[in-house]
Parts: sequence; structure tokens; C-alpha cells
Amino acid sequence: MRVLGIDPGLTRCGYGVIDAGTGRSASLVDVGVIRSEAGGAIDTRLLAISRGLSEVVERHAPDAVAIERVFAQNNLPTVMGTAQVTGVAIVIAAERGIPVALHTPSEVKAAVTGSGRADKAQIQRVMMKVLGMSALPQPADAADALAIALTHLWRGRGPVRLDASGAARTSAQSVWAEAERAARRKRDRSNTVW
Amino acid sequence: MRVLGIDPGLTRCGYGVIDAGTGRSASLVDVGVIRSEAGGAIDTRLLAISRGLSEVVERHAPDAVAIERVFAQNNLPTVMGTAQVTGVAIVIAAERGIPVALHTPSEVKAAVTGSGRADKAQIQRVMMKVLGMSALPQPADAADALAIALTHLWRGRGPVRLDASGAARTSAQSVWAEAERAARRKRDRSNTVW
Repeated sequence: MRVLGIDPGLTRCGYGVIDAGTGRSASLVDVGVIRSEAGGAIDTRLLAISRGLSEVVERHAPDAVAIERVFAQNNLPTVMGTAQVTGVAIVIAAERGIPVALHTPSEVKAAVTGSGRADKAQIQRVMMKVLGMSALPQPADAADALAIALTHLWRGRGPVRLDASGAARTSAQSVWAEAERAARRKRDRSNTVW
Repeated sequence: MRVLGIDPGLTRCGYGVIDAGTGRSASLVDVGVIRSEAGGAIDTRLLAISRGLSEVVERHAPDAVAIERVFAQNNLPTVMGTAQVTGVAIVIAAERGIPVALHTPSEVKAAVTGSGRADKAQIQRVMMKVLGMSALPQPADAADALAIALTHLWRGRGPVRLDASGAARTSAQSVWAEAERAARRKRDRSNTVW
């Protein structure tokens, strides 16, 4: 099972490819960002991101594509560009018959650390350990894309137990279920299309 | 000059194709909507819209594609799906080297009627007259797409003068310029990517 994770963005679109190993092991295949010129025309920029993502998909032939889900009420200055890139990424996968999933930041926390209140540093420690990295990939968009790919592999399962204890498994599944419910409520309230 | 106007949407994506004639005349080439199932998965839905739009572009080979610009702070329930469709439409045009423009609803009012305060009925009356239609195309998304195409043809020019008087021309150009300035202010404030 090979997963391509995407942190969608118009200026920097992060991508990370991982292969599932036995149990909770996973290996890093590729990670990076596709950029477009901040001052450029929107068609030139989206085309650059589209071509870069298509090339990554062709090169690595993932079994699934997982994309960070952004909500309109986040109301970041870049939310429309992020949504446009998300649409482009979804179609690139769908044209090739590759299943697509969208995961919220809460789902990433729940899947990777087993806690919906985990901070970024905790997520990053798990990722570095599991993927055998001595430093995080830069920029942050690249690391975030890897976390989304790992979330897709581990969704609905317990957290990785770096200390070899399985005690928190049931609790972690509850955290995931709650993150999913929260995403569903948010979507139903604000965004009928997802 | 042939323009494809798009009213982006995930459930109903309106499109309208018009050819410019001499002066302010224009002729209707095609109008319709591409639909996707409201309950379907996002990848299936976006792929359906993408294929439908690609087919329209291949069939009519427009010289320009004009898309309604939606802002994040509109905060409609469907804004993220609309932005995703916009991204897909922009890439479909850009891949074929067709120039893309985004026009706001205020720009449509200014270009078609010469007044930034025009209501929908006024826009529709001008459209029906210019394109020689005895009734508006249904659903509304299809008519809106035609208005966006007409806006692209007439942007920055005076309004169509159905009464053959040219008196309001300079004033209409001011209305357009103000609509453009308003769009730029809104964009700078809320959305750095457009």
C-alpha cells in the first residue's frame, strides 16, 4: 500500500509518499513541495501545481491519495487558492482511478498520536521515528504532507506505540471516532458538498 | 472572438458560449449545465464536472474562458466546492493555452447594464435582447454563465444601448472601473492569491 499525502497550497503544495510495511512500520519514498510564483497569474500558477502533482503521481503510482481538508470558515487569506488546488489534485487522482480521501488536522492528530490535543511537535516526533528520519523535511508543507499520508494509513487504528505498550489502543480509536464526528458536524453545518 | 462563460458549481456548473459580432452584437453558440450527484463522493463529482467542461472546451474551442469569481467571505455552504470547480476549470483552459479571466458579480452588472446597482432582471433583459432569446435558458446557472461570457466581451466598455443613445458611455466605464477597484480591494483584503 503506497499513499501520496498532499498539503494543498498555491504558493507551496507539499507532497509526501510513503509505503506501508508490516504492522505499523512505514517507509519514506519521496517528499517535497511544488511551488508557484506568488505574483503570477492564477492560470499559470494552477497549471504549474497541476503539472507538478501529475508528475509525482505518474512517478510513484500511489494506491491512494490523501489530502488535507480545509474548511471555508477557517477564512485564511489563502483559503480559495487552497480549495482550487484541492480540486485540481482530486481530479488528477480521479482521472487515474486512484481513491481520494480528505483528512482534517484533527484526524491527523488522532491517527498519528492518538490524542486530539497533540501539538505539532508530537506529530513530528512520531513521524520522524516511524520513517527513520533524523530531521524533518523542509519546508513545513512537506512534513505536513507526510503526516497526512501516515494518517491515511493509520486512520481508525490505535496510535503508534513507540514504547511497545498497546494499552491506549481503544482510547485512540475513540479519539479518531470523535475527530471524524467533529469533521462531519462541521461539514454538515458549513459545507454541504464535502 | 468566442468566449466560454462558466458559473462554477459542484451540483450544477453552468456554461455559455457566445461569439462576438460587429459592434455590440453577439450570438449564442451553446448554453447548458453540467451536473453531478449531490450525494456522490467528491472525486466522482469533480471528475464528472471536469469531463463535462473538457468536452465543452473541445467542442467549441473558445478564445477565452471567463469564470465567476467567488470570495471566501461569501461563506456560502457551497463555497469550497465552487472553488474546487473553479480550480479544475482554470486548469482545463490553461492546459490548452486558453486565456482565463475571473469576473465578480459587480463586474457583470457594470459590464452588461452600465450600473453597479442593476438587479438580475435588468441583466437578463439585456442578455435576451442581445442574444435574441425569447426566454431565459434554465436553470439560472446557465443564464448566469452567459452573463459572465458577455461581461468578458464587454468589460471596460460602455453598456449596450438598447435605445440607440450613446450618452451613458463614459459613466458606464466609470462604473466598470469602480467594480474592478472594489474587486481588487476585496481581494487584497481577504484573498492574496487572486
